Amino acid sequence: MTDNLSQPSFWLQETITPWDIYSHGITRVLAHQKTPFQELHIVETGAYGKALVLDHKWQSCTGDEFLYHEALVHPAMVLHASPQQVLVLGGAEGATLREVLRWKTVERVVMVDIDGDVVAACQQHLPEMHQQAFSDPRVELVIDDALTFLDQTAETWDVVISDLSDPIESGPAYKLFTQEHYQQVKRVIDPGGFYMLQAGPTAPAELQQHTRVIKTLTTVFKQVQTCLCHAVTFGSPLAFALASDRTFPHRPDPATIDARLAEQTLGQLQLMDGETLLGMMQVPKHLRRAIAAEQTIYTLGNPPQL
Amino acid sequence: MTDNLSQPSFWLQETITPWDIYSHGITRVLAHQKTPFQELHIVETGAYGKALVLDHKWQSCTGDEFLYHEALVHPAMVLHASPQQVLVLGGAEGATLREVLRWKTVERVVMVDIDGDVVAACQQHLPEMHQQAFSDPRVELVIDDALTFLDQTAETWDVVISDLSDPIESGPAYKLFTQEHYQQVKRVIDPGGFYMLQAGPTAPAELQQHTRVIKTLTTVFKQVQTCLCHAVTFGSPLAFALASDRTFPHRPDPATIDARLAEQTLGQLQLMDGETLLGMMQVPKHLRRAIAAEQTIYTLGNPPQL
Amino acid sequence: MTDNLSQPSFWLQETITPWDIYSHGITRVLAHQKTPFQELHIVETGAYGKALVLDHKWQSCTGDEFLYHEALVHPAMVLHASPQQVLVLGGAEGATLREVLRWKTVERVVMVDIDGDVVAACQQHLPEMHQQAFSDPRVELVIDDALTFLDQTAETWDVVISDLSDPIESGPAYKLFTQEHYQQVKRVIDPGGFYMLQAGPTAPAELQQHTRVIKTLTTVFKQVQTCLCHAVTFGSPLAFALASDRTFPHRPDPATIDARLAEQTLGQLQLMDGETLLGMMQVPKHLRRAIAAEQTIYTLGNPPQL
Amino acid sequence: MTDNLSQPSFWLQETITPWDIYSHGITRVLAHQKTPFQELHIVETGAYGKALVLDHKWQSCTGDEFLYHEALVHPAMVLHASPQQVLVLGGAEGATLREVLRWKTVERVVMVDIDGDVVAACQQHLPEMHQQAFSDPRVELVIDDALTFLDQTAETWDVVISDLSDPIESGPAYKLFTQEHYQQVKRVIDPGGFYMLQAGPTAPAELQQHTRVIKTLTTVFKQVQTCLCHAVTFGSPLAFALASDRTFPHRPDPATIDARLAEQTLGQLQLMDGETLLGMMQVPKHLRRAIAAEQTIYTLGNPPQL
Repeated sequence: MTDNLSQPSFWLQETITPWDIYSHGITRVLAHQKTPFQELHIVETGAYGKALVLDHKWQSCTGDEFLYHEALVHPAMVLHASPQQVLVLGGAEGATLREVLRWKTVERVVMVDIDGDVVAACQQHLPEMHQQAFSDPRVELVIDDALTFLDQTAETWDVVISDLSDPIESGPAYKLFTQEHYQQVKRVIDPGGFYMLQAGPTAPAELQQHTRVIKTLTTVFKQVQTCLCHAVTFGSPLAFALASDRTFPHRPDPATIDARLAEQTLGQLQLMDGETLLGMMQVPKHLRRAIAAEQTIYTLGNPPQL
Repeated sequence: MTDNLSQPSFWLQETITPWDIYSHGITRVLAHQKTPFQELHIVETGAYGKALVLDHKWQSCTGDEFLYHEALVHPAMVLHASPQQVLVLGGAEGATLREVLRWKTVERVVMVDIDGDVVAACQQHLPEMHQQAFSDPRVELVIDDALTFLDQTAETWDVVISDLSDPIESGPAYKLFTQEHYQQVKRVIDPGGFYMLQAGPTAPAELQQHTRVIKTLTTVFKQVQTCLCHAVTFGSPLAFALASDRTFPHRPDPATIDARLAEQTLGQLQLMDGETLLGMMQVPKHLRRAIAAEQTIYTLGNPPQL
Repeated sequence: MTDNLSQPSFWLQETITPWDIYSHGITRVLAHQKTPFQELHIVETGAYGKALVLDHKWQSCTGDEFLYHEALVHPAMVLHASPQQVLVLGGAEGATLREVLRWKTVERVVMVDIDGDVVAACQQHLPEMHQQAFSDPRVELVIDDALTFLDQTAETWDVVISDLSDPIESGPAYKLFTQEHYQQVKRVIDPGGFYMLQAGPTAPAELQQHTRVIKTLTTVFKQVQTCLCHAVTFGSPLAFALASDRTFPHRPDPATIDARLAEQTLGQLQLMDGETLLGMMQVPKHLRRAIAAEQTIYTLGNPPQL
Repeated sequence: MTDNLSQPSFWLQETITPWDIYSHGITRVLAHQKTPFQELHIVETGAYGKALVLDHKWQSCTGDEFLYHEALVHPAMVLHASPQQVLVLGGAEGATLREVLRWKTVERVVMVDIDGDVVAACQQHLPEMHQQAFSDPRVELVIDDALTFLDQTAETWDVVISDLSDPIESGPAYKLFTQEHYQQVKRVIDPGGFYMLQAGPTAPAELQQHTRVIKTLTTVFKQVQTCLCHAVTFGSPLAFALASDRTFPHRPDPATIDARLAEQTLGQLQLMDGETLLGMMQVPKHLRRAIAAEQTIYTLGNPPQL
């Protein structure tokens, strides 16, 4: 009853494993809504700013989102060197869009998100994230299922970025982590284009999703690369997967990357530069071995399991 | 990241002692608001229905509020036998009002709550609690500080019920638990009237607030009685204090109480009857001894401490 | 990594309901052992002294055990008026034994506990609980399954006290909460004797175990009475069940009880006296109604479910 | 009371920030002891094996310790190329020792730990960690304060590895993170030798310790390098600091590193190889900038603050 301590009273608990829980102390609930697709909270935390939480799962927060969004967007963009047409799948916060729009080469970005209510809530409550990206004339926002959109579009892109929260979820999202979907994505990527996606945690107790996503991607794309993510508030380290039919360097020269970023992007990047990119692409031995040993390919007939 | 378990992800933690914490799993946040006086949440819990939470402190919930509100209202009412004028201090949920209005003898109830925003949120989101009590023509709702109201009123009451959350809080509420305030209340109570108030937890590690409130009341009223409360969701047992200048029985006859309730009240009481009242008024020995040993009187010069 | 706060780091979580958790901050682990029957911890808490924890379930603690053990032992003893032969089932801490031994009338106590390792650990680490009760020449300690013991004994008792932790557990303990077991107990009770047992929580969301135990007992004994327990550290209020074929008062006269306790017991009781007993036996209306409405009888063929 | 769920009941909570807590579910307490210096627990967790916990702070666990200990030991060893004399400060688990002993070049290792009771408990309960390293004839174990040992020793070393848990602790450990201590260490390092130490978390909300340790080291050693650590069970990413007066490459050639490891070490490394090392030494831009901006030097007169 009495609450004389300085510690917070509201907590969001993220179950990393059944025996490892990361708890975020919540100081305010800024928005709460039940959309047709999910339950949304936008909350204020003590140490990491405002956070978007969907179905009680942490999506991103203002305090470390640059570690996530810059790392998700720029590797594909800078390795492409001159991305003009970009497709973003998911990405409601608008932060992925914001990073894409830094590129002077970009002429058009289509962002496809299934949940217009979440996008609207982020537009209202998370200006630190989108920084008015949705108003940029190069942006087209499509509220639709990514699968439907991909089936119907006739366009192709230089870079496709999949900013979907989790490889494994209840609901139809599991389809987004199958060979069939990766083939569907490949059809809309230009021959020299790149595909970057969130690809699960890399902690020793949770490797399996990542190794299977990588294995599955290798059946579709000529080159697939794990990119480590330095974001901290998920409680567990994440990795992305970078895939292309184009050959790209596993150890890009930092100076070349720095020069390209300086020339082609606007504004000040907090995380990304040549040294950061080189580090992200060096995969620790235990993870490389687990990837090499992986045999399972996710398909619609053998999808990720809960 | 993955959240495959059925356990809830949002928790409200109530610090009972620094080493004893009661956590309520929250399934939805129904309302959240920062009023001029406090931060309000109305949440849905898994096992105990909807709850009002003020400044991150549990106030009451639909799943066990009858154990609180019936026990707070009816002892004073039934021992008075014919209450006509009733004053409620606090009580935003409207549940205290609801119980008062069961009494056919009641002609007028004034409810004074400092925070109109909290009352409005409860009116909107907690109909199970107030059950339209605010629309009863006998009710007058005053949004004001209880201290100011008591200073200015010229009326007197048969029963005064103080439904203020906690004896000890940050802010000016500590004044409501002093000898000076009890004298102020006594001035507006009819000579044969009763005063009932929430009077703190009775767990062995937290007895002090209760014993001091009782001790302080005995300096103002001729008879003071601890009444045990059976509510469970506070994580710690509570007690009320019943005070009067009129003599009242410490072991009221259950049959007499039952007859009086049957005659004078409307609707079905869930908790209160003669046996329940008799039990509430029998104070365990360790608590009686702690009350008897208490020396401290709360005054404005020596108020409850955080 | 840094742990600059005064809050504890080790917590024992008691799941009251899946959405209501009581957490005890642990300051030290005094003993830890895996016995053939269960996992034992004896821990030190911040606010409630030392606690015995079996299979991660709170059994009792030095800080409020008097609220449990005095309430478990004395109602049967004092209503019997002259108990000489007493049987204790379970009760490893020795605190139930301690309370039984206060009675000058007692000539012999047999305590039957299945787990000698737990008894030995309590003897070593919880002297505050047993207070050398195991050394009293009137005590006979039997390490055996209560069911086996009851089947084989030819003795009878004035009072049988069942201090078994929980009506519902994994393992064979469920048998101890069936009609068949209650009949087995009845066979070893003298015609004027009493049976007292722990009978589950009484919180609104958890009533069912209690009402079914009471219902089941009424098929075996002529009079059955709920006795409320004021212990606080279980996070949820408990009740005991008092059963006898002898008629006993539902509202015992406090003065008579006080006189009997003064005459027949040694040492200073912290909780129990006439007023406390009268209060314990007055059952709140909602609980009486739930008991009256209960239809289910626990039998070996229809035992308590997990 | 009832505990029917599969979730664990004992939790160790690590406070990362006051609003970010990482909880480890404990399935067994294998050892618990209060030594003259600290409180020790060796526990079993659900997902990450056995863990050493000192003063309620997570030290390391069998499930991901290779990510910590291989990364702590091998960078200095492999960059040195032919380490013969090695000094380990702290390192009670014996896992740091184990990694040092892989080096065929090593002739002698002195390990200095202040707490012999912790070392003994690890020897008994954590064979997975030390793998009999303490029995290697090249090892000399000294139970002493590292500061005293360094003051008194006349020896010098090729590599000094500081495996002390935390830059900032209660007690005298803060002295181990000052300029004066780093100068003391430098005196016992051969001119071509290396010093590697745990250097705090790198999460955005907790950068300050790391940047100050690096800044302080740069006042003592000619070259200082942050090395990222991939361990996950601390809840927050850590970094080490590698310091030397010898020039060493910031981007060591992976093939050269692989060849050196193959030639000079025994057994199978899980984490370390040329690619891993290259990645560990590429510091993300935001961290490099924070290091570059840091002005504070830790000295005995201006030590790390709680």
